Amino acid sequence: MTLPYGKRTMTKNNLILGMALTDGYGNLRGAWRAPNVDPSNYVNIEANIRYAQAAERGKFAFLFTPDFPAVRADVERAPISNIIEPLISLTAISQATSRIGFVATGSTTFQEPFNQARQFKALDVLSHGRAGWNAVTTSDPAVAANYGRPVAERTERYQRAHESIQIVQALWGSWEKEAWIKDQASGRFADPSKLKPINLQGEYVASRGPLPIPPSEQGQPVIFTSGGPSPHLLSIAGRYASGFISEVWTIEEARAQRAMVRRAAEEAGRDPDEIKYIVGLMTTVAPSVREGLDRRIAIAGDTLTAQVPHLAAMLGVQLQHSQLDQPLTPEQLAAAQASPMDPRSGPALEVARQGWTVRDILAHGVIDYHPVTVGPAEVHADHLQEWFEAGAADGFWLSPDVYEDGVDAFVDHVVPLLQERGIYPTEYPGRTLRENLGVPELYGLDPRVTSGEDS
Amino acid sequence: MTLPYGKRTMTKNNLILGMALTDGYGNLRGAWRAPNVDPSNYVNIEANIRYAQAAERGKFAFLFTPDFPAVRADVERAPISNIIEPLISLTAISQATSRIGFVATGSTTFQEPFNQARQFKALDVLSHGRAGWNAVTTSDPAVAANYGRPVAERTERYQRAHESIQIVQALWGSWEKEAWIKDQASGRFADPSKLKPINLQGEYVASRGPLPIPPSEQGQPVIFTSGGPSPHLLSIAGRYASGFISEVWTIEEARAQRAMVRRAAEEAGRDPDEIKYIVGLMTTVAPSVREGLDRRIAIAGDTLTAQVPHLAAMLGVQLQHSQLDQPLTPEQLAAAQASPMDPRSGPALEVARQGWTVRDILAHGVIDYHPVTVGPAEVHADHLQEWFEAGAADGFWLSPDVYEDGVDAFVDHVVPLLQERGIYPTEYPGRTLRENLGVPELYGLDPRVTSGEDS
Repeated sequence: MTLPYGKRTMTKNNLILGMALTDGYGNLRGAWRAPNVDPSNYVNIEANIRYAQAAERGKFAFLFTPDFPAVRADVERAPISNIIEPLISLTAISQATSRIGFVATGSTTFQEPFNQARQFKALDVLSHGRAGWNAVTTSDPAVAANYGRPVAERTERYQRAHESIQIVQALWGSWEKEAWIKDQASGRFADPSKLKPINLQGEYVASRGPLPIPPSEQGQPVIFTSGGPSPHLLSIAGRYASGFISEVWTIEEARAQRAMVRRAAEEAGRDPDEIKYIVGLMTTVAPSVREGLDRRIAIAGDTLTAQVPHLAAMLGVQLQHSQLDQPLTPEQLAAAQASPMDPRSGPALEVARQGWTVRDILAHGVIDYHPVTVGPAEVHADHLQEWFEAGAADGFWLSPDVYEDGVDAFVDHVVPLLQERGIYPTEYPGRTLRENLGVPELYGLDPRVTSGEDS
Repeated sequence: MTLPYGKRTMTKNNLILGMALTDGYGNLRGAWRAPNVDPSNYVNIEANIRYAQAAERGKFAFLFTPDFPAVRADVERAPISNIIEPLISLTAISQATSRIGFVATGSTTFQEPFNQARQFKALDVLSHGRAGWNAVTTSDPAVAANYGRPVAERTERYQRAHESIQIVQALWGSWEKEAWIKDQASGRFADPSKLKPINLQGEYVASRGPLPIPPSEQGQPVIFTSGGPSPHLLSIAGRYASGFISEVWTIEEARAQRAMVRRAAEEAGRDPDEIKYIVGLMTTVAPSVREGLDRRIAIAGDTLTAQVPHLAAMLGVQLQHSQLDQPLTPEQLAAAQASPMDPRSGPALEVARQGWTVRDILAHGVIDYHPVTVGPAEVHADHLQEWFEAGAADGFWLSPDVYEDGVDAFVDHVVPLLQERGIYPTEYPGRTLRENLGVPELYGLDPRVTSGEDS
């Protein structure tokens, strides 16, 4: 009987970096219109390959492709915000890289588990053990409509998610480590005693198996999940995930979430160090904070100033467009308070109190999806180190403002500083995604999963 | 209003060649055990890339991945006979080639049309217009079990196939040719009047759309279909397909089928020249027929001799294993007749009458899935030319005996002969799969499809 868990790779300098690959332009509104950006980059895999190679130069453990398989209503003025298709794009990128891993988002709501198991494992095999699956559920009506279905209610979505992930993992494990003999002399191709059907029958999905693909160099792909820490999502994370991709704005929020995620893993009988908590960060690397803000103002332009009412609501004050290039008045600052409903309000109020103009406050990305760091290398390194050492994150997934030059800027300026500080590896710890994340390799069926009552 | 059909590329030397990519070893039984073959090639994308690059050197229009997403019962002794996953593998190969096209088999029975539309179009875009979809239905119980479903009856399978293909084509066409503006100066990203939902609701599948991917250099992927010419399949071929991949053994059978396929296109209101009828051929290129047979005997070994009873049944005679290295006796030859139920019987009887030994008859692949040509370049070129000029085929999909050296042998020896004879192009006619097949580019919705009562 093969033990499903093999050796654990841990490094001393073990801050993990990943990078989001999205639309080919960058996270900053207006990035697609920046002077140095080719507006065709949404379909130019060659551009994404350049970004991936830059991230690999910076020893990033993985690329992560968020997904939203629908066209948003504002397509006349704003680009489609995600990669054209996660698995296909990452597969192409795998052929131009050798170490960086690939975490593709794939919904358990609208996919067949057998197809997902097969495609992710195919990428895992042909990338020599670098694939990961960000398993999510989908509740957006625009996406559901593309599959001709209504939005399922939450209990059903998560029941299907459990079933799907268990089937996918079991299909991945349907070849034990030694199942593929391929002995030319004897003519034995596989050992049928180690290559078996899985026969999983759920309420929503089912599969007999086995999968027609042997293990990769890391055994099987790494499972991630992402989102807010609802009990439903934590039950997914705790049982199956080796990576948790979060959206948080403050260290306190992140520490609390990370503790919840680790506790969920423990409750599922796992070592909490086997699930890596990865927080988002949006970066503008520039010689100074002022130059960084100017870069963001030049690129984001009107889309920033359109956010004035939003900022006013976050701070609970009246703000006029005429005040764009003024700081908040003493009266406004006295009245302002951070909205307890919005964790971004605190950081916004903090820079407002430092006397920043309204335009600069907005340019700092205080209304963005993640914390934003703007300025020289130290600003970014300090943020990463502070969160890392505070136990708020095992790693970060970065979204550069503009991919075309933002990845290189981070890799050339921030990465060396992290390495000097001894918190980030100077070489890849290994060749597979599992090795580079520091999570154990996995072969065969995971007894902790397959013995559960849900299977 | 954009006309959906653009210019037609026709070449004079227009025999089309494609090549099957299967298990990484070759079509000959035992290929995985051949001395020059790495038994790991089933998972080595690098090996498939070499084969693809060789085919591209030979100006092959496309690679074709048959598919059977299940593990067969004989996996202990025989390799899994298909590529690990069609789309993922071909996407990887696209990054190491620049002209050859990719025809991936994808079932309409167990896939979501939105996912298929998205993944095929993503490959089409990132390969710069080289993708095709071999749309098939699936009735195999082993495959159905992997999706946890019973086998659907034929009427349902084909109804779902029509619905799926119409949805996929409509999603591909949901961006008109000029929909993607991406004008940095004005900030207009797309023209919403040319980028529209499709709102197709079938009995089995449905989608709102639009797809979040703009057109490729060929507009959209090329649709193929494959199989025997049942009325159900001909209705698919006639309405949607630009390529028909067949399995036939004789010129007469092929001519009749090709006429049926062309008639189906005409009945659907299309130009029959827009659907290319592609027949299979399995090749062993060797300095002489004798050396070719010896190569096949050396590789296929016992798997050949196990076919003696099958050959006996095909010819209606008793054959003993002791007769392996003898020709049929005059009495056997007098009694033998080609089984009218098996079109392969005629070619088998023909070589038997030439005095071949039983082993050599079997080594010639008379019980294979397609005609087999064995010997020097002229043998293959003659076969191709004869079928092509007889109107039995617009092109061929080749399965080399052993990929490792069989592709190079064909490209280096047979292709130049076809070019000398003026029936095969010396350069790629164009850059896209549509150009290299000689079928028109396609943008927007196809009015002949979307006006049909089935949509």
